[in-house]
Formats: sequence, structure tokens, C-alpha cells
Amino acid sequence: MAKNAFYAQSGGVTAVINASACGVLQTARKHRDQIANVYAGRNGIIGALTEDLIDTSQESDAAIAALRHTPAGAFGSCRFKLKGLEQNKAEYERLIEVFEAHNIGYFFYNGGGDSQDTSHKVSQLSETMGYPIVCIGIPKTVDNDLPITDNCPGFGSVAKYVAVSIREAAFDVASMAKTSTKVFIMEVMGRHAGWIAAAGGLAAEKEGDAPHIILFPEITFDQELFLAKVEHSVKEYGYCAIVVSEGVRNAEGKFLAEAGTRDAFGHAQLGGVAPVIAALVQQKLGLKYHWAVADYLQRAARHIASKTDVEQAYAMGKAAVELALEGKNAVMPTIVRKSDDPYAWEVGYANLAEVANVEKMMPREYATEDGLGITEACRRYLQPLILGEDYPPYKNGLPDYVILKNAPVAKKLSASYTLKT
Amino acid sequence: MAKNAFYAQSGGVTAVINASACGVLQTARKHRDQIANVYAGRNGIIGALTEDLIDTSQESDAAIAALRHTPAGAFGSCRFKLKGLEQNKAEYERLIEVFEAHNIGYFFYNGGGDSQDTSHKVSQLSETMGYPIVCIGIPKTVDNDLPITDNCPGFGSVAKYVAVSIREAAFDVASMAKTSTKVFIMEVMGRHAGWIAAAGGLAAEKEGDAPHIILFPEITFDQELFLAKVEHSVKEYGYCAIVVSEGVRNAEGKFLAEAGTRDAFGHAQLGGVAPVIAALVQQKLGLKYHWAVADYLQRAARHIASKTDVEQAYAMGKAAVELALEGKNAVMPTIVRKSDDPYAWEVGYANLAEVANVEKMMPREYATEDGLGITEACRRYLQPLILGEDYPPYKNGLPDYVILKNAPVAKKLSASYTLKT
Repeated sequence: MAKNAFYAQSGGVTAVINASACGVLQTARKHRDQIANVYAGRNGIIGALTEDLIDTSQESDAAIAALRHTPAGAFGSCRFKLKGLEQNKAEYERLIEVFEAHNIGYFFYNGGGDSQDTSHKVSQLSETMGYPIVCIGIPKTVDNDLPITDNCPGFGSVAKYVAVSIREAAFDVASMAKTSTKVFIMEVMGRHAGWIAAAGGLAAEKEGDAPHIILFPEITFDQELFLAKVEHSVKEYGYCAIVVSEGVRNAEGKFLAEAGTRDAFGHAQLGGVAPVIAALVQQKLGLKYHWAVADYLQRAARHIASKTDVEQAYAMGKAAVELALEGKNAVMPTIVRKSDDPYAWEVGYANLAEVANVEKMMPREYATEDGLGITEACRRYLQPLILGEDYPPYKNGLPDYVILKNAPVAKKLSASYTLKT
Repeated sequence: MAKNAFYAQSGGVTAVINASACGVLQTARKHRDQIANVYAGRNGIIGALTEDLIDTSQESDAAIAALRHTPAGAFGSCRFKLKGLEQNKAEYERLIEVFEAHNIGYFFYNGGGDSQDTSHKVSQLSETMGYPIVCIGIPKTVDNDLPITDNCPGFGSVAKYVAVSIREAAFDVASMAKTSTKVFIMEVMGRHAGWIAAAGGLAAEKEGDAPHIILFPEITFDQELFLAKVEHSVKEYGYCAIVVSEGVRNAEGKFLAEAGTRDAFGHAQLGGVAPVIAALVQQKLGLKYHWAVADYLQRAARHIASKTDVEQAYAMGKAAVELALEGKNAVMPTIVRKSDDPYAWEVGYANLAEVANVEKMMPREYATEDGLGITEACRRYLQPLILGEDYPPYKNGLPDYVILKNAPVAKKLSASYTLKT
């Protein structure tokens, strides 16, 4: 008898994680002989622990197809990391209990490094507990920090958003710089890895193009060097456009965002490194500035998603189901690059054991020697990931994103479960 | 003999001011018998005062056509307001002197209220000085605060950006709210008029949709009312999405942005009301927040421009030339709304004397009684302005915006001119 599958979205959502969900669901629907139904976890893995499952068979084919162009997590995601097996084995046992109650034979977990660690642990536990379940990870992270896969679905779209936005803002600043703003600072995500900030560099195609400075989390902030480059840029080009990663740190290893800003009550922690950099520019150079903090806008910007990214996100969801049906277990589909230009890639896979808890940092040689820009090698890597547009449909002038019914599956277990947070 | 025309861009640029320039230039090129050449002011009116003119005849037809899809000011704009006629008549005399030297018979000034005041003064002076010049204003402002015209080119695109962005960010927050961010705050432009903030309200099409709260500059910030609505929204919908205008003020008339934030040195004025609201939410309600400041991204976002806006911006540029050729003087083309739904509009015109220095505020009845949302009347007004998409062409995954040659016109006057700022 065909088993059911469980699918959950985990961690920070992206513009294309629902495209992966679309790939999973559309592919599963073609194999009802092997996958009877797909139950989604409401709010990610929490839905499994609390037996709060969503019956995706209640959704129309049209609604499932619309997931491909809808940002964020249609079933809800969560920031909830399962403890280690030793610390809280009961959590894993509970998962197996819920899966058993609902005849779930497939576990698809759509997330980043922590999530793939969970998938890996579930796959191990199922063996030791004698409950056979196929565990497949599906890569997702705007931070692009998963190992083995050439890149992560979610990253290409935020990369495109950042490159488009800094280009547009720089056109604005350049045209007004004579009498107005001379320095523009755009803060982007990436607390540990500089991939997103680096993507801003794609907007600069020739000498003098914006952005003129990129500040990476991996490279210690050098105030003198930075200010000198700001001055140089304003002198040479009339203005200076800066992309700064939220994770930039000073020589003491402290986040600049926390080192600077205080609210009226003297509390730090408003967040925002852009205003800190802006204040520095104003105080040391006396230049007129403006700053922007893109925050969630960047990772939710499905309206300007990369077509490459959407296709890859979908392909990863589809491949996850196909790998499961081929009898693979404890693996994650990956993107394998075959060629930079013209860009070519294919689907591969990696063992979850090798993916779990490994963070892929941006190589130092992807930043220029002065640490304030990207190299040609970096551009070669990043360029294909933002290629192509994949516009959502519009209604009343706004993207027509789908909101699913998210009908619950009837509970089968009597015990309620309290989350250990 | 055909006279030359002068065209300049003034004040804060928009996603579509170059579409107006495109309308001016393409229309003028069709009437070379009457308009020999169009000289653009480099950096706006400063280019006229300093005799720094750009020869637009050096630009190819393709480059001029590409202005239609290129944001910001292709010839440079400026924040430079001419003094009153009494205070600095010399400035106006200098303008006439430059115009005379270059055989300029038409003055096209693309800007907001201040700029239309300048156009008006130039038209008056030309009479008293006996130098005939036709003065036509071209409306432009993201703030939508010009009188008589139903709306201003530039506003529709920033409105669309804001509505799209809050919808997308809200999808993100809604899907994560169970375990993460509960309150999201997006700061938008509009120091005096709430039009841009109001546009965020278009994203909410039914009860519970984001944004749940809009804070307008015209309506005094009521902390208790605001916090109560945040709590209500989080309780009812699981999260709260807020659009806040940079110009929101407290009961003492002080900008919240200035009342709150201080940097490490105790200086106020980092700017940013979003972090102030965020800190308030955190301190009073203990809710996890995120905030974004769109800043220039919103007014430069040509990639998501409103088709209606692009068409109207172009039409205003075209009409300006046509009005001049018809013998009109001291007027500005306007957008006249004929019907809300289906939306219909036509081109009209207004006397500069009636446009100059009049600021059109958002009517109080466009905000709900509690002052935290928009009414149906407001929605009816705003809805057509964001209709349609008008995507730019892309190259290497990025919008392919044009940068003009901007070749200078040879100077004819010996005297240099020092700007009085």
C-alpha cells in the first residue's frame, strides 16, 4: 500500500521555497501509486511534533501550480531547531510516532544546514527504531551557505534583488549628487556569509559603476581604508554607493550594528548597520548621506525573482521526490554546475551526513585584495544565478500570490505534545 | 527661424521622470521646423545658470527611446530653488541671458511645486524683459502633492513599489510568525503628505490582509491607539505589518524619527522612524520585530514601475511640447480623470500661476476614522494609478538602463557665473 509523505518548510523563508514545494507536490501527484498523499507540517517541523498536519490533497492543481510564483512559506515555517539526539531523543521519537500514526513513509525537509542535520538524525533514528522512513533534504537558504551543492535555491533571487536595487538607487544618487546626497548605503542580509553582499557587485560592470564599496561579514571593517575609498569615489565619480552586510564586524569582532546605535533610552540593539556607517561618513567626511535597509523585502521579492533560481528551486523539489522513489535515502538533491558561460547545470545529490552542519563560506579570493569589492572569479560564479526573469501574474496592479486552504488532517493521537523551546 | 528649447529636471528624481524627458525629446524631434534642438540643463537649472548645456541632438533615437525605461534623471537634477524675483532678480536675468545666447525660445521645466513656481517666474520675467520665451511646466513628484492635476507622474510607481513590497514582506512574516518575527515595520517616503504611505493600503484587499496599520504624516501619532492595534492584529492574525511614513509626528509636532534614535556619540538625526517604532513595540509589548527602510529604492524602482505611471509621464512630456507649439504659455499639462473603474484619463492643462506653491494634501476622509488605515474612497482614487506593469529590458540578469553621452554645448558667454546657494 502506498505510504503518505510529510513535507515541511524550515527556517527563514525565501522568494522561491514555495517553488520547491510546488515541485514536490506536482511530482508526488504523478505517483499516487507510491505516494498516497502529502501532508505538510503547519509551521514546519512544529506541525509534525504537535500533529498539526495539513492535507495538501485539498488544494486544487491550480493552487499548487500557483505556489511556483508565490514567495514565503505557504504552509508556515519556523525557527525551531531540534535538539541533539542525546539531549532530547523524545522529540525524535515523537516525530516517528506521528509519522507512524499517519502512515508516513517519506520525510521531505526543505531548509538550510540545521534542517539537513535534522533530516539526517531522523533518518538514523528510523533505522534504530525499526520504523522505515525515507528522508530527503531539499536545499533552501538565501545565505547560499550549504556545502556540496553549487548554490542554494533562494539565493539567486535575493542576489538579483540586491543587484537590481543598488543599480537603481545608484542611478538616483548619481543624478542628484551635484547638490544633494553623495553617499548611499544599502544594508543587506548575511550575518556570517558575504554571498548576498557580493551579489550587489554584479551591478558594477565597468570602472566607476556602482556599487563602489562592498562590506563583507568575513572581512574585518577597516575604518581608514573605508573612508579613503568613500572619498576617492566621491571625488572620481561624484558619489559613492555602498552595499553593507548586516554582519560586518570591527577588529574586536563586534557587530558594527550593535556597536553604534542607541535608542532614546540608551538601549543598543535597534539593529541596522547602515545608519551606523552613515553616521560615520557624516562625522568623518561631512558628506550628505542616505541609507536603506532592505530586510525582508529582499528575500520576499518574488516580483523580481531570478528565473534560474525559480527553475532550480522547482527542480530540487521534483528531484527530492524522484530520489525517494528511486530508493535513495538520507540524501539531498544538489545543483551541479557544468559550465559558467553559457551557464549549464544538472541535478545531483549528496549524502545528508556530509551536508549537515557544514557552512560554506565565501572564498577569500572572491573579494578583492582591499576587501571592498568582488573579483572576476566571484562574478563568474554569481552571474548565472541571477539570469532570467520569472514574473508572477498580476491582479489589480499587484502580484497575485496564492494563499492555500491549509485544511488540517484529523488527529489520530490522543496525547498532546508540549514543545520544548 | 526655429528656436531651440531648454529642458531641465528638477528636485528629487523618480522612476519615470526620464519617460517625460523621452516624451519631450521624441515629440520635439518630430517638429524640427519649430524646435531646432533641445538643450538639457546639466544638473537641472544649475546647467542653465552656469551655461552648462547638454546637446541632446548627439543622442541616438535608440538612446532617447531607452529613457522611457530608465529611472532617475538622465541629465542630472538638483535641489536648488531659485530665489524670489525681488531677492535675486540677477538669477532670472542670467537665465534669460543664457537663453538668448543659445537662441532658446522654449523653457520646459520638469519638477514639483517649487519648480513650477520657477517656471512661472521665468514666464513673467520674459515679458518684462522683452525676451519672448514660452514656459511650460511638466509635473513630477513622488509625493503626489501638485494641485489641479489628478495625480503626479512618479507617484504611481512608488505607490506600486510600496504596495508590492509590503505584500511580499507580509507573506514572509505571516509564514514565520509562529516562532519568529511578529511585527514588521516598513518606512516609506512622504515627509508632509501621506499619499505614499496610503498606497501601501492597496495591498490589503480583505479583512486581515497586510498592512494592518498605516501611519500618516498628517495624523498625530497616538501611541496608545497604535499599540492597541498592534496587539489586536497579532492576536487576530498572528502578526502585524505596518507602513510608516517618514514624516510621522508626535503630539508636540516633532518627527518621531528625530525624537528617538541616538548614535553612540549621543547625536540624534540618524534618520529612520522605523527603528523608533520597532523599539517602541519591543519595549511596550515585548514582541519580536523586523524593520525595513526603503529610502531611494522606492522612488528608483523602475523594474516594478506602474504602466499607467509610465504612460502618463510620457504623455506629460509630449503634451508639454504640443502645448508650446500650439502657442500656450505659462501652463503645465495635467492628468484629468474621467472615470475610476474602468480607469480613464485624458490630458488637460493648468495655469502655472495656479500650480505654483500650492501643496495638495491627502484629504482626511481618505484615512479611516482611527487614522490607521485607508478608506474605500482612498482606494478608489489610488487603485488605477498602480495598474499595469512596464518591465525594462534586461541584460545579464539586470535592467538595461541607458546612460547618455551628455555632450556639452559650446559656451557662448564669456562671463562665468557663481551660484548663490
